[in-house]
Amino acid sequence: MTIVENLSRPVSDVEREYAAALERDAAQLRRIVDLLQRVDVDDPLLLDVAEKLDVLSEHLENPIDTVTETIRNPGWRHDPVSGIENAIAPPIVLEAGPDGIVTAEVEFGLPYQGPNSFVHGGISAMVMDHVLSAATAPQAGVIFTAQLTVRYHRPLPLFVPLTIAARLREREGRKIWATGEIVVDGKVAVSAEGLFIEPRPKAAQ
Amino acid sequence: MTIVENLSRPVSDVEREYAAALERDAAQLRRIVDLLQRVDVDDPLLLDVAEKLDVLSEHLENPIDTVTETIRNPGWRHDPVSGIENAIAPPIVLEAGPDGIVTAEVEFGLPYQGPNSFVHGGISAMVMDHVLSAATAPQAGVIFTAQLTVRYHRPLPLFVPLTIAARLREREGRKIWATGEIVVDGKVAVSAEGLFIEPRPKAAQ
Repeated sequence: MTIVENLSRPVSDVEREYAAALERDAAQLRRIVDLLQRVDVDDPLLLDVAEKLDVLSEHLENPIDTVTETIRNPGWRHDPVSGIENAIAPPIVLEAGPDGIVTAEVEFGLPYQGPNSFVHGGISAMVMDHVLSAATAPQAGVIFTAQLTVRYHRPLPLFVPLTIAARLREREGRKIWATGEIVVDGKVAVSAEGLFIEPRPKAAQ
Repeated sequence: MTIVENLSRPVSDVEREYAAALERDAAQLRRIVDLLQRVDVDDPLLLDVAEKLDVLSEHLENPIDTVTETIRNPGWRHDPVSGIENAIAPPIVLEAGPDGIVTAEVEFGLPYQGPNSFVHGGISAMVMDHVLSAATAPQAGVIFTAQLTVRYHRPLPLFVPLTIAARLREREGRKIWATGEIVVDGKVAVSAEGLFIEPRPKAAQ
């Protein structure tokens, strides 16, 4: 993970146009993923879409077949939890306040459903790991989660605005503790605490 | 969540063809999401793909605009962790053994990356919540996570086959405990324990 300031900074000036295209691609994919969750299962459209997706992915595959499988700089722009360039990431935008508290607003749709009409418990855990680790950013570079505990106080409904907040609790050498919660209608629905480890400079490459 | 036996059963006989189309759509979307993580950021292709995705999602949007926003039966086929019809779900296939142990093999690609070359810690937490809850299926219907603790013993590499296993530990009334782990190269990389609650029959609707 990189520092929070990177959140709103494009990869580089030269790549600005391409970064915008990646964002747009991811937004469109996210939209299609969502639409496919909502379409009636007996809609003949479904039989047609696969064909169009075939053509598109062939189109994409050909030119990059020769590119070796690179591991792109992870950073916030394409991580799987809030990466604006990553279509599997929910539409979460993190903001770091001057008090060091990281906050986010999010509304989950059908792709994130677990029990009928509620957010999947695994999605809440995924988001808490990410937001807690973001809260460590002012004091650490790349970090690894050592332990995460998530408590579910009430089910998180789909299609409702949720507020997420996280803060750094304590630092002791390379160990950093953070806590946070997801609030719906003014009530804490999910709370979490995490222990994160900053690798030794050499180990972090 | 539904029971594990539903894993390999299509939604219904009549909908078999459409279910197959949804699977194919999701597989193609997953492929495109992955390709977009690997494509060179200065590849002019990126500028072209957004346009093609525009056309496709317009095509999808029009006919379903009139369909009310339904909450489809969640079930295993389109949950966000192992749903074969859901493009945000990693390529995980759960199997329930006769001993009640739920296992899965998975290899994560770039869309699931956290720290450079490693699986995002939030993805591990998401997967553990899901696999642990699957292990409760023989004894429960729809369940909700009450508490999940995930311990990270070593980083999970991308592009390497991982083995996941989970088992039910104890049941006490509507409370069910389960444990599990993710193993790489014979070593436990992530372990987790979860407490799940089965709602009272009325509350589960």
